[in-house]
Amino acid sequence: MSGKVYVGVDLGGTAIKVGLCDENGKLLHTHEGPTGAENGAEFVLDRIAQYVRLIVDQSEHSWEQVAGIGAGIAGFMDIPEGFVKLSPNLGWRNVAVKKTLEEKLGKTVTIDNDANVAALGEAWSGAGAGIPNVVCYTLGTGVGGGIIINSKIYQGSLGMAGELGHLQIVPDLEAIQCGCGQMGCLETVSSATGIVRMAHDAVARGDKTSLGLIQNITAKDVFDAAKAGDEVALRIVHRAAYYLGRSMASLSVILNPRRYIIGGGVSKAGEILFTPIREIFTRYTPEQAREGVDIVPATLGNDAGVVGAAGLNLPR
Amino acid sequence: MSGKVYVGVDLGGTAIKVGLCDENGKLLHTHEGPTGAENGAEFVLDRIAQYVRLIVDQSEHSWEQVAGIGAGIAGFMDIPEGFVKLSPNLGWRNVAVKKTLEEKLGKTVTIDNDANVAALGEAWSGAGAGIPNVVCYTLGTGVGGGIIINSKIYQGSLGMAGELGHLQIVPDLEAIQCGCGQMGCLETVSSATGIVRMAHDAVARGDKTSLGLIQNITAKDVFDAAKAGDEVALRIVHRAAYYLGRSMASLSVILNPRRYIIGGGVSKAGEILFTPIREIFTRYTPEQAREGVDIVPATLGNDAGVVGAAGLNLPR
Repeated sequence: MSGKVYVGVDLGGTAIKVGLCDENGKLLHTHEGPTGAENGAEFVLDRIAQYVRLIVDQSEHSWEQVAGIGAGIAGFMDIPEGFVKLSPNLGWRNVAVKKTLEEKLGKTVTIDNDANVAALGEAWSGAGAGIPNVVCYTLGTGVGGGIIINSKIYQGSLGMAGELGHLQIVPDLEAIQCGCGQMGCLETVSSATGIVRMAHDAVARGDKTSLGLIQNITAKDVFDAAKAGDEVALRIVHRAAYYLGRSMASLSVILNPRRYIIGGGVSKAGEILFTPIREIFTRYTPEQAREGVDIVPATLGNDAGVVGAAGLNLPR
Repeated sequence: MSGKVYVGVDLGGTAIKVGLCDENGKLLHTHEGPTGAENGAEFVLDRIAQYVRLIVDQSEHSWEQVAGIGAGIAGFMDIPEGFVKLSPNLGWRNVAVKKTLEEKLGKTVTIDNDANVAALGEAWSGAGAGIPNVVCYTLGTGVGGGIIINSKIYQGSLGMAGELGHLQIVPDLEAIQCGCGQMGCLETVSSATGIVRMAHDAVARGDKTSLGLIQNITAKDVFDAAKAGDEVALRIVHRAAYYLGRSMASLSVILNPRRYIIGGGVSKAGEILFTPIREIFTRYTPEQAREGVDIVPATLGNDAGVVGAAGLNLPR
């Protein structure tokens, strides 16, 4: 097989996933194994290098065809330098990922944060394929975001662009504190954590809800109860959807993307979440800023991370 | 004189201003005259062509050195086509500005909306010179905005990016209707119109304020009263500043620009406006998104429009 190929690494706290993509972002091969973060950064970087070589060896592509290696990592980093300042997931502080991997592999290595990388994956060959300007939300434990402008990740001046979970969207009088120290961030209501918190609050204050019978409430439990007609669960889902829709209304007069993509575990709830998001978006966005704009689920699922990481070395 | 030169046209409802810039955005010559909009679009476009030729003739530059002509216009337009769909200021509907001027002048013509163009002017050779990512606010009758990414205007998918005046930033319970049809837009509080409205409200409800003695209250009257220690005027100024600061806190986790530039008539109020904006911005922006980020007044004043229009044809 001829043509360039791109290797992506999705480096999580428990697993390393490596993927090989063709020039169109099609994921050809993957390999996954435990991170072994407890053995330290050097061990993890060795393992990544080993997986990268393995996946190329196993493919019908030669090492020479590899145009570059990208890695998505949760944490704070200096992206141009490829230096991870702090990754609580991995227990890392000041790890020179780019330099170390480039020495081990002899190929260009590029890193970026996991939410940006997932956004790039969806934009490259997922729900945003062919659309240059998209905004992606990743709804999980937190709310991640990624902004793709002209098919590239937009970083902002301090790498803080697209931190959509920290939009202070909840009015002050209703706001609770976010892990970031501010009040009323989107992530306090529209993440799995936020949804579970609202469920606990409802149960604690004695609201009449089937959620009271569940031991360890998850976001999925709340969506299931809402689908079964539980009014309290439905209100919680609507509140999570409301602030997502309002945040998109704001983004549409700032960035005016063509498409919003929602991924992450919470997005699997489906129409019960998407329908109210679209209603709120339509209600609060000026007509000129929403013509032809759509809100769609992510399509790559857990592969968005490896695909987007592979895409970090696309020609610019 | 050798080197390329760029011509900018600031097309307003009452005046046409044409400027000639060098390659560094230095404004070398200007010519200004009445728009004569009452004579129709053909007349106005003829007059623009005449002013453009005049200003080049009057300079020490040859017509061959002119790399392109840009025009900033208030209204809705198809920017790639250079077609004005609607400009209430000019009384225009469906005017092919680019095509007509290119036929008249034999040079590339590019148009954009006035707030974007003013932002580009400030970014090119004003308060944002040398900084690739800036966001500009123009505080006048309304609140205009412009987003500059990698030294270029960012349009968004429908040309609605940077419509910062229509960020719905005021909490619903405090919101009033905006001209755009939505509620609680930034421009309902932080524009001259918003400031004057709040002053009228205060007088009407009998608040104890020196503003009650003024016949036709202007935004400047409110700032002057605030500077003189009028508590009611001070509260109005703080409210206008508060929502500007909050909007910048939001923008800093979305776009994370390096600098905010504030221009337009209202910005001339100076420190009484800028100090509370900076305080609110600092209070509501996560630390990682505000390190080294500053909020500064525009420096080009009324020239931002012609300079930015000239900049529309810079090499990309």
